[in-house]
Amino acid sequence: MLINKRELHIEFGDCDPGGIVYFPRYFEFVDACTNALFELAGLPQPRMQKMYGIAGIPVVEVRAQFFVPSQFGDRVVVESAVADWGRSSFSVRHRVLKSDTLAAELIEKRVWVMRVSDDPVRFKAKSIPWEVKGKFSDLPEKK
Amino acid sequence: MLINKRELHIEFGDCDPGGIVYFPRYFEFVDACTNALFELAGLPQPRMQKMYGIAGIPVVEVRAQFFVPSQFGDRVVVESAVADWGRSSFSVRHRVLKSDTLAAELIEKRVWVMRVSDDPVRFKAKSIPWEVKGKFSDLPEKK
Amino acid sequence: MLINKRELHIEFGDCDPGGIVYFPRYFEFVDACTNALFELAGLPQPRMQKMYGIAGIPVVEVRAQFFVPSQFGDRVVVESAVADWGRSSFSVRHRVLKSDTLAAELIEKRVWVMRVSDDPVRFKAKSIPWEVKGKFSDLPEKK
Amino acid sequence: MLINKRELHIEFGDCDPGGIVYFPRYFEFVDACTNALFELAGLPQPRMQKMYGIAGIPVVEVRAQFFVPSQFGDRVVVESAVADWGRSSFSVRHRVLKSDTLAAELIEKRVWVMRVSDDPVRFKAKSIPWEVKGKFSDLPEKK
Repeated sequence: MLINKRELHIEFGDCDPGGIVYFPRYFEFVDACTNALFELAGLPQPRMQKMYGIAGIPVVEVRAQFFVPSQFGDRVVVESAVADWGRSSFSVRHRVLKSDTLAAELIEKRVWVMRVSDDPVRFKAKSIPWEVKGKFSDLPEKK
Repeated sequence: MLINKRELHIEFGDCDPGGIVYFPRYFEFVDACTNALFELAGLPQPRMQKMYGIAGIPVVEVRAQFFVPSQFGDRVVVESAVADWGRSSFSVRHRVLKSDTLAAELIEKRVWVMRVSDDPVRFKAKSIPWEVKGKFSDLPEKK
Repeated sequence: MLINKRELHIEFGDCDPGGIVYFPRYFEFVDACTNALFELAGLPQPRMQKMYGIAGIPVVEVRAQFFVPSQFGDRVVVESAVADWGRSSFSVRHRVLKSDTLAAELIEKRVWVMRVSDDPVRFKAKSIPWEVKGKFSDLPEKK
Repeated sequence: MLINKRELHIEFGDCDPGGIVYFPRYFEFVDACTNALFELAGLPQPRMQKMYGIAGIPVVEVRAQFFVPSQFGDRVVVESAVADWGRSSFSVRHRVLKSDTLAAELIEKRVWVMRVSDDPVRFKAKSIPWEVKGKFSDLPEKK
């Protein structure tokens, strides 16, 4: 299973008046990590969209648990991997690690969609090609 | 049950290259709506923190489903209410409505916490006072 | 001269660990205010882009001064008006008022551009139509 | 003169519906780069605040010029250095480079401040210690 690991440096601007990471920021972090995971699989998003004629892989569902907060100056590692493949959807699990502690866990459900018109809010789910799925399982773990 | 209704105007800066609201933004929206709900209940956060000696009501868990995307220029209404009270935690359900359509639903689980030291990342859960809970049930629905 | 006035409620998520509005947020605020000013002039952006065949009005220069910080719970008013028209560019001045105090002033210089290809990073400046400029001077001040 | 160089990967979430970096994001980027510059000088912010009894180094003025837009997937380098020292204020110049092209230039004016009370919006400028200034000039350029 292909795993992307990204080290993040928590910035001042990531934090709220309580001095900890403002929780919506985690979703920005993991969105970028999903894109990095696809790039690691040889599927950088802009190219993938053109190759497969899709509009993108929008998030339709998320679940998140925050166990240990982080603050400005902390370094965390996000480990991201596809947890589950459906016909036209898939889940990405992100584990946010602070040293050896699981600080947060976020799971995104995303859909492989094409546009049905020029209207940016109208999409249609499409079957995910097997070759796409294959790219996430065959490769050895990379950093 | 006290319900806060907030109309949001989707801004250009809320949207991503796909032309739809960037999903982490929804968590900023609902965070503000939870604060507005508490204000509606007569508990504006800064004052509430001083009155009850708490550090805040951080989010420890969220679940979200996105059914219909929104774009720049759209107006949506967020209806927010406490869905569930625990001893030291509670859940807030946010329904994002686009006209009569449920466009998204987000549920935050938050904890009533006090600091245990100056360290911003260390908290301890505390029992939520009954009078706080009472403020969310007694009042008639307001806009 | 057409002036847009928008009241903003400073949210928890707008603020940094120092407890004041994180300064990059002001640029999000005024970007939305420029769009609101155009809408007040009868030129909502999505329609304006189609009508005039432009890609948008990107910011090419900004100057900002921050005099008095704001915090969670504050209400400020942003007054926005075109300060200067060039051939293909214009400046929008935003005055952020906290009661009667000028809390911040931001000036954006924007350009009226069309795409030169599908490449989103390639633009060409175009002359701003007189009728567009006229819409910002003829109308009485509105709220 | 001490120069901090930081490579940034432009993320999907940094970009707007036009497909280019949403300009307020640049201010988040350079805010983090100023903090990195201070860390490079041996003055990580949280420690610096305690050592010198200051509340922070808030931005009181910014000027920015955007020459060439960037998009999702681009890599840019931000070179940051103190451009000017005053008694209690200083300017940091950030040059955003896309390969050999100057894509943007941003100058922040910041003030060395202490709190005058618990009120987060009240500050007082203080003289910047010579030893602080010295840390930005003596060292050889580092990556």
